Amino acid sequence: MSGNKPSAWQDYLDAGLGFRNHWYPAFFSHEIKEADASSGNGEPVEHFRCMVILGERILFRRIDGQVYAIHDQCIHKGVPLSKRPECYTRETITCWYHGFTYDLKSGKLINIITDPQSALIGRHRIKTYPVKETHGLVFVFIGDGEPPALEADVPPGFLDEDLVMYPEGWAREVNCNWRLGAENGFDPAHAYMHRNSPLVRGFKVPTVLGDTGLGEDRGMDVVNGERENNGPCGVRLIRGAGTPLWQVEVASGRTISARYLPDEPGVMQGMIPEVGIWMPGVLRVDPFPAPHIVHFEWYVPVTERTHRYMISWGSKVRTEQEKKGFFDEMKYLWRDFVPQKFNNEDMFAREAMDEFYSVEDGWHRERLFGPDVLITAWRILCSNTNRGIQELPYGAQRATVK
Amino acid sequence: MSGNKPSAWQDYLDAGLGFRNHWYPAFFSHEIKEADASSGNGEPVEHFRCMVILGERILFRRIDGQVYAIHDQCIHKGVPLSKRPECYTRETITCWYHGFTYDLKSGKLINIITDPQSALIGRHRIKTYPVKETHGLVFVFIGDGEPPALEADVPPGFLDEDLVMYPEGWAREVNCNWRLGAENGFDPAHAYMHRNSPLVRGFKVPTVLGDTGLGEDRGMDVVNGERENNGPCGVRLIRGAGTPLWQVEVASGRTISARYLPDEPGVMQGMIPEVGIWMPGVLRVDPFPAPHIVHFEWYVPVTERTHRYMISWGSKVRTEQEKKGFFDEMKYLWRDFVPQKFNNEDMFAREAMDEFYSVEDGWHRERLFGPDVLITAWRILCSNTNRGIQELPYGAQRATVK
Amino acid sequence: MSGNKPSAWQDYLDAGLGFRNHWYPAFFSHEIKEADASSGNGEPVEHFRCMVILGERILFRRIDGQVYAIHDQCIHKGVPLSKRPECYTRETITCWYHGFTYDLKSGKLINIITDPQSALIGRHRIKTYPVKETHGLVFVFIGDGEPPALEADVPPGFLDEDLVMYPEGWAREVNCNWRLGAENGFDPAHAYMHRNSPLVRGFKVPTVLGDTGLGEDRGMDVVNGERENNGPCGVRLIRGAGTPLWQVEVASGRTISARYLPDEPGVMQGMIPEVGIWMPGVLRVDPFPAPHIVHFEWYVPVTERTHRYMISWGSKVRTEQEKKGFFDEMKYLWRDFVPQKFNNEDMFAREAMDEFYSVEDGWHRERLFGPDVLITAWRILCSNTNRGIQELPYGAQRATVK
Repeated sequence: MSGNKPSAWQDYLDAGLGFRNHWYPAFFSHEIKEADASSGNGEPVEHFRCMVILGERILFRRIDGQVYAIHDQCIHKGVPLSKRPECYTRETITCWYHGFTYDLKSGKLINIITDPQSALIGRHRIKTYPVKETHGLVFVFIGDGEPPALEADVPPGFLDEDLVMYPEGWAREVNCNWRLGAENGFDPAHAYMHRNSPLVRGFKVPTVLGDTGLGEDRGMDVVNGERENNGPCGVRLIRGAGTPLWQVEVASGRTISARYLPDEPGVMQGMIPEVGIWMPGVLRVDPFPAPHIVHFEWYVPVTERTHRYMISWGSKVRTEQEKKGFFDEMKYLWRDFVPQKFNNEDMFAREAMDEFYSVEDGWHRERLFGPDVLITAWRILCSNTNRGIQELPYGAQRATVK
Repeated sequence: MSGNKPSAWQDYLDAGLGFRNHWYPAFFSHEIKEADASSGNGEPVEHFRCMVILGERILFRRIDGQVYAIHDQCIHKGVPLSKRPECYTRETITCWYHGFTYDLKSGKLINIITDPQSALIGRHRIKTYPVKETHGLVFVFIGDGEPPALEADVPPGFLDEDLVMYPEGWAREVNCNWRLGAENGFDPAHAYMHRNSPLVRGFKVPTVLGDTGLGEDRGMDVVNGERENNGPCGVRLIRGAGTPLWQVEVASGRTISARYLPDEPGVMQGMIPEVGIWMPGVLRVDPFPAPHIVHFEWYVPVTERTHRYMISWGSKVRTEQEKKGFFDEMKYLWRDFVPQKFNNEDMFAREAMDEFYSVEDGWHRERLFGPDVLITAWRILCSNTNRGIQELPYGAQRATVK
Repeated sequence: MSGNKPSAWQDYLDAGLGFRNHWYPAFFSHEIKEADASSGNGEPVEHFRCMVILGERILFRRIDGQVYAIHDQCIHKGVPLSKRPECYTRETITCWYHGFTYDLKSGKLINIITDPQSALIGRHRIKTYPVKETHGLVFVFIGDGEPPALEADVPPGFLDEDLVMYPEGWAREVNCNWRLGAENGFDPAHAYMHRNSPLVRGFKVPTVLGDTGLGEDRGMDVVNGERENNGPCGVRLIRGAGTPLWQVEVASGRTISARYLPDEPGVMQGMIPEVGIWMPGVLRVDPFPAPHIVHFEWYVPVTERTHRYMISWGSKVRTEQEKKGFFDEMKYLWRDFVPQKFNNEDMFAREAMDEFYSVEDGWHRERLFGPDVLITAWRILCSNTNRGIQELPYGAQRATVK
């Protein structure tokens, strides 16, 4: 810890709740159904999603196909509307407590059932959130003002029209800060912990991200899309840069090495992936876990000590038959196997870092080593290209990171 | 939030632990039995009550019919006496740890079994609390010096001699601040959430507290008994002021209105109640839930985020037969039905406000509307007539509300 | 509470996490097995102990009979090594996350599997802790620099060669600060709470520590071994000083007295014990619970609100047969009976004090009485002879005790 000298990635250190004014995935498209016309009977309905993202509680509803998002809090006395959602029409939500009624699209207070002449009506609104839905995900913009194009906040290629996503993504809340998730995902040396994972050993999937000898100008690449073309900002490992995998004799006659080298016999072929991490916190691995499959994973801030870990998979299929093949492969094999037999180890590692970074000033006490050049490039890029720091709400105090 | 400008009800904002120097109900009379003479054998006895009220831990014991209250903490090393109460006589309690023995009436340290010659004996005392018992409740004065008459801290009429209380009141701890309890109870617009309650629909009980068009000089009445005659201070809805109930067309062909107007067919008759809230936090509804029954409910501060919700019912009976009828009606019908099928919704609402008011600065971010004129009158009255703010003990810090 | 005037035992008040630069028992010798040679296969092994002592997380391993201790935290990203211990050799431990490999004896970083050429190798180390093992216990030195002799941090006589310890000591974590444990153990008046314990009544064990009329120069003795000969520092009750046990008539015809006076009929004989408490927090009672048995109990700080309570028993046996007799007596009688039927009451009392001392400023609000002269002598001795205050790690804030 270097006294009070600002860090080269100070913004990153301050972003415990994430970066503001970015797009984040909220959930998978199939998880929210069209508002039921019969929900107009004033009784609670199930056709809602309520998520906490960057510390903000947000209510989602799908109306005529389009998803809308509003702050899940009545302006009157602050109760969550989602505790007992009441919709007398498909386009409104009424607070269960005193009947404050809001337009779901504009957030405007359009009626108060218990005081229909109130001067508040038409003059107040709940915050609404821009929403975009594509490639199986519902994205929400956590920020102020006009949002940028979604393209700037997803990995290159994610929006390709011929990229077909498997609809049933996977998601779980992990008990650590989102940055530990992102750094774990893109960490080139953590292949060590995966070398015995059932995915790796069972399918002989060659090591992803096992490169050594990386340097700022060797085997990696910083993409500052914002500066150049308002596109994605990220850090990439350069595919096929030929950097060697490690192999170490740990004891006499006992060698530990990354499993598996791409040229070992029996290893899954076609698996020299391109790996990159992108603002505001999403990893793209192409291909993984098998050729033709692109693996995306998001680290969405929830609280300062939790993040939502979301994974989805896509493939560039050319025919309906290829699509069916991809879907079957996902359904019967990878959809559950990958998170349970590979990424479970990542979640274990992230949560094992939580105390050090959350309580013990790990951000300054950590001791980085060679492969972490990728991590620091990511931290600096985040600090240079973010559109704002998400603050704790309502003047709450954060444990300062100096 | 208007900067640091003091609020018109600043005392109220500061009273997270309640108002000091007032009487509060501790529990129901039947809940504490006469001290058992045989408890003098030094073994633990069950004839105690221990309650936390306004953050103070208090031990109660009934001796020769009268209830006494002392601070439940030995002066020596601070252990709660109630953890293992030992009474060698009916009028004393001995600390189970080192034998410090206190007179229950005066709180005086009268003996130390393990150091009978100690100079501390006779020179120290535990704080005692004034107690009054009436109408089925044991009241305790949380404050300093001479207490005022109990009359000033209960609703008018509560102490009437011909008001017979049903002995088995109802109580539960609710997970929110006591002020949210009080405001919910007296909130004229929250009838909205009760419109479908089993009590309302099953018995066609007309809406209580559903008035609209209230104003400081319309349909309500502030009673500052302190200034006038050292009597109760409260805010009342004026019975029969003729303010209309709301009725709103929320969607084409769909009208939501308060259930039930007193003149609707089949509605329970004789049910135009007088409703008022009184310092230091008690609601009186006369009648409710049925004619001839008066409903009282208390919101007793426990911690900053919990309060004890106590309900009791009385009736002005003239004969033993009427009394028996009232008791039977309570026992077989209302005693359980009212809290479980009506007030349960209030507890739901109060706890739904907790996070907003406790963590998110809701006291300044709330957006009040017309019917809340009753609430703000209550806040101002509290701020004008309270006898003190209960502080957090021992220099503990409170999250400031500015 | 005397304003901000420093206390006569200020160091003691500051030592919520214990005193630094002292030896503490970590666990019993039989609880850690020799490192398994087969553990070199890189899979997790069970031959470890991980303990939190004075807030520090420490990993222990036995190599060729000797126990070694290192800080249980990888220098890289702070994960606990013990979460998934990997040992490729008997003398090393490798971090499961990125392969940082440490020598267990020196703590030195000797390899990084995923970056074998790293400049960090050989230049960093994990903190190691001096360890001594004797009389059935593994002691660890929590401090900096060269440790003093173990003799200075155990009671006199504990290291006698002819003192045979029963190997199966007893330990439990208690939910209060270590100082409350120590003071409870040495408290001469708390015999009051034990007067009805099954141990006392069942075996007619005469009262230990029941003396009254103590004074700084009467019935007690302060031993400042540090100043004199670098030996143990402690406070002793003087055996047979003839101070009387208390006996009080608590009600007409009812007398409470310490059980049992040594000269009462049927009382266990040979039980006038010597009792002393020693830095950094260990009680010695000789004999207890029966003649020829010496009882030791330790109060080891874990966090500010927990301590590990460890008890072990020894005896000066002269023959193998005497040793077998002692072991049988411990195994079939005292080993479980003493903690469960006597010291359980102490744990109850300590936890009952936790809130007062941890939250309610009990250190200044307590009201000491005569027998506490022993406690204050202990506090002052601690303040005069400790070798340092254990600080909360990483700049964390402690609730100040002034």
